[in-house]
Amino acid sequence: MGGKKLHNHNNNNNGAVDTNSNNSNRNGTTTTTTTVKPPPVTLQQSPIINLDRGDPSVFEPYWRKNGGKCTITISGHDSLSYFSDPNSVCWYMEPELQEAIRRVHRVVGNAETEGCHVVAGTGSTVLFQAALYALSTSSSSVAAEPMKVVCAAPYYSQYKEQVELLQSRLYEWGGDAETFDGSAAPFIEVVTSPNNPDGSLREAAVANKTGNGKLIHDLAYYWPNYTPITRPADYDIMLFTLTKCTGHAGSRIGWALVKDVEVAKKMTTFMQITTIGVSKDSQLRAAKILDVVAEDCEQHAADKTFFGESRKLMAERWEKLREAVKDKKDVFTLPKYPKRYCNFSGRYFQPAPAFGWLECKEGCDASALMKAHNVLTRGGETFGVSSRYTRISMIGREEEFERFIERISGIQCVDEEDEEEEEEEEGFVVMNGNNGGDVIRLGNENSNSHGKWLEQVEVQ
Amino acid sequence: MGGKKLHNHNNNNNGAVDTNSNNSNRNGTTTTTTTVKPPPVTLQQSPIINLDRGDPSVFEPYWRKNGGKCTITISGHDSLSYFSDPNSVCWYMEPELQEAIRRVHRVVGNAETEGCHVVAGTGSTVLFQAALYALSTSSSSVAAEPMKVVCAAPYYSQYKEQVELLQSRLYEWGGDAETFDGSAAPFIEVVTSPNNPDGSLREAAVANKTGNGKLIHDLAYYWPNYTPITRPADYDIMLFTLTKCTGHAGSRIGWALVKDVEVAKKMTTFMQITTIGVSKDSQLRAAKILDVVAEDCEQHAADKTFFGESRKLMAERWEKLREAVKDKKDVFTLPKYPKRYCNFSGRYFQPAPAFGWLECKEGCDASALMKAHNVLTRGGETFGVSSRYTRISMIGREEEFERFIERISGIQCVDEEDEEEEEEEEGFVVMNGNNGGDVIRLGNENSNSHGKWLEQVEVQ
Repeated sequence: MGGKKLHNHNNNNNGAVDTNSNNSNRNGTTTTTTTVKPPPVTLQQSPIINLDRGDPSVFEPYWRKNGGKCTITISGHDSLSYFSDPNSVCWYMEPELQEAIRRVHRVVGNAETEGCHVVAGTGSTVLFQAALYALSTSSSSVAAEPMKVVCAAPYYSQYKEQVELLQSRLYEWGGDAETFDGSAAPFIEVVTSPNNPDGSLREAAVANKTGNGKLIHDLAYYWPNYTPITRPADYDIMLFTLTKCTGHAGSRIGWALVKDVEVAKKMTTFMQITTIGVSKDSQLRAAKILDVVAEDCEQHAADKTFFGESRKLMAERWEKLREAVKDKKDVFTLPKYPKRYCNFSGRYFQPAPAFGWLECKEGCDASALMKAHNVLTRGGETFGVSSRYTRISMIGREEEFERFIERISGIQCVDEEDEEEEEEEEGFVVMNGNNGGDVIRLGNENSNSHGKWLEQVEVQ
Repeated sequence: MGGKKLHNHNNNNNGAVDTNSNNSNRNGTTTTTTTVKPPPVTLQQSPIINLDRGDPSVFEPYWRKNGGKCTITISGHDSLSYFSDPNSVCWYMEPELQEAIRRVHRVVGNAETEGCHVVAGTGSTVLFQAALYALSTSSSSVAAEPMKVVCAAPYYSQYKEQVELLQSRLYEWGGDAETFDGSAAPFIEVVTSPNNPDGSLREAAVANKTGNGKLIHDLAYYWPNYTPITRPADYDIMLFTLTKCTGHAGSRIGWALVKDVEVAKKMTTFMQITTIGVSKDSQLRAAKILDVVAEDCEQHAADKTFFGESRKLMAERWEKLREAVKDKKDVFTLPKYPKRYCNFSGRYFQPAPAFGWLECKEGCDASALMKAHNVLTRGGETFGVSSRYTRISMIGREEEFERFIERISGIQCVDEEDEEEEEEEEGFVVMNGNNGGDVIRLGNENSNSHGKWLEQVEVQ
């Protein structure tokens, strides 16, 4: 411990422990390393803990145990047509899915579906883009300039990426809603509640003040697994996704509840032109899963349902995290969330968000600090705030989460004087490690020629 | 027959026969109609035959009979993660699907997959957009102006829509490749072969001449159901879709074979940012279907396979169409396709494209003519050519196709003098009908408040 060095080597090989005492890296510079030991036995043969991605594996054990009723069988002749429901604005949407969505919102009480049109998407991500298209091309917002899209910081890191991807003339990224002047022209404000990354409950920051703003509410995490359900949300455009509701990310099913039929039609048009609808196989699967979940809620006490069990699991993780972080106040702190009454559960509880939002002391790069300890997280700058913040996933695999909790004790910031002394490679903050004298290469340990490419993959 | 009038009434109601002898339309003008009869007994209670859409229902009976081996079961705990294959550039793609795709191309001999990366999409539509993104942001094509996207006319009507949807600064629609000057700046040419709408086999019209063009080959119809397989296609970017290969449109599975790894990575990035991957449920289903199809090809004579049986069905439809059209040379003609040797089938045959491309005489609006006979088709102008052409789907339901064949005999152009005389409503070409004295409202016969909206839905 204390003062041993970790080097951020190029990781295009299989990430094995560096056994050269004199090792040339890609830039041709030579670094001298100390003792050579086999790597610590780690998760999937890798010392890397990836808490960057929001892959909802936390719910997999529940479904392994209780998923029997959700099994579906698809025959060779099923779902051959593009079309599903001529009576719905969203013509490619399976009626069963629409029914199941309305039912689950009704039993959970987290959104008002009455008077809403339901538009299905390949995840909710694409429905955010569909909403941007619909709102920026409506007759009331025809403008010479692209419409600004804003969101209060810290904001979900991928809104900006999605807005900017195709350099559209219809809309462009406007940054932090808190500092945005909404008085000049029509704009779009995204409200994420509970917020990704910091778990806070939110209302519009600027749109309601000026009257120029159109709102998209991303309610992906407004489920009792994560937060008390205080009332049915009731907004113009509300986005939800199966991924965060039940954990079935691989099915890529999201939905929008949309009040204005013209907006719903435009969103459907967007889906039609970009992907000609959404997988029916996954729609039918999602319908089945949501029906099973809703029935469960109708028949059992809240604690015995999928949401109840999931909330318990999330609460346990948060308790472990808070316990582990308790003694590290000099390194980082976590937000506190007030208890609220959950209408679904019938009692008060504290939110247990899908992500932990770590705040380090001034001047410390939180994600670099974590990376130096082989924990991949997503740094504050991608969310529009300082690098002293970083986001960790709380919904990954159990083993990985437990390993992270163990590793926390070894994480500590280095005083600035020491840091200068210990810095060997440009642009890399060298931290105290908990790996003895090992020199560990960051990267994907699988023998994988695309390791470096894959490391750039960021989801949710 | 002969000189009776059909009126293009507003169709926001349920499309019933107009029983008013004095009927006010939406514009407030009054039209006088003649005798009142119940509507002819037609497909699904509707006199409308919709041959506009490329919904591949033609293959449904095959799968009803032979789809047993394609049945899949998905458990509640399957496919929870976003991730599929860290060893593939396309990290969200199921390895089984990649394997099945390579296998089916190998047995059919329609594309060279060796040295190609496979990128999966929610249909091939989105992969076209992913390719536009990849090609227009590559380092070799950074330009001040958006890259032009061109395609030889007649071109698939939805390329233009897709290119223009978000008013991107990366690329813009450049129209007909045949008249495009490709010498000035980098551009993208789409080559559709066999072509949608006209079934012709194509090579690049302009890209190869100037050296400035990057190519996307849309090979959705290069399967032995539709055309002789003369050689394995071997291009930089090749797009395929399950929809036109096996008919499973509802699964929304497409794939791109991509030679340049950097292009494949950028396409994957596009998919990641827009939809975070592709439904795993449908990927696994598609893998199963393609494996069954490939195994069938490996074990049986070509004629006894899915492709052989489908080709027979398509050939029969084309024979019926040519027979019906034979006596209507004064009204419309069809393209002729030379016989070619099919390596897959081991014999010569004539192409039987997924669409019929009708050409009317000069001055006749082909799609209006068909619409006047309650046959919805897609007019030449949407494909960048004259309105004397129109496209009819050859891959719809059997009943609908048969009804169309019956209806052809009654279709005839009106001489220009008669036409003027008979024209009652502005902008509507009145034609001789085969419905006696009926006045039929065009529209969706289902009691459907979104009838008019749904009529605008155009797919493939």
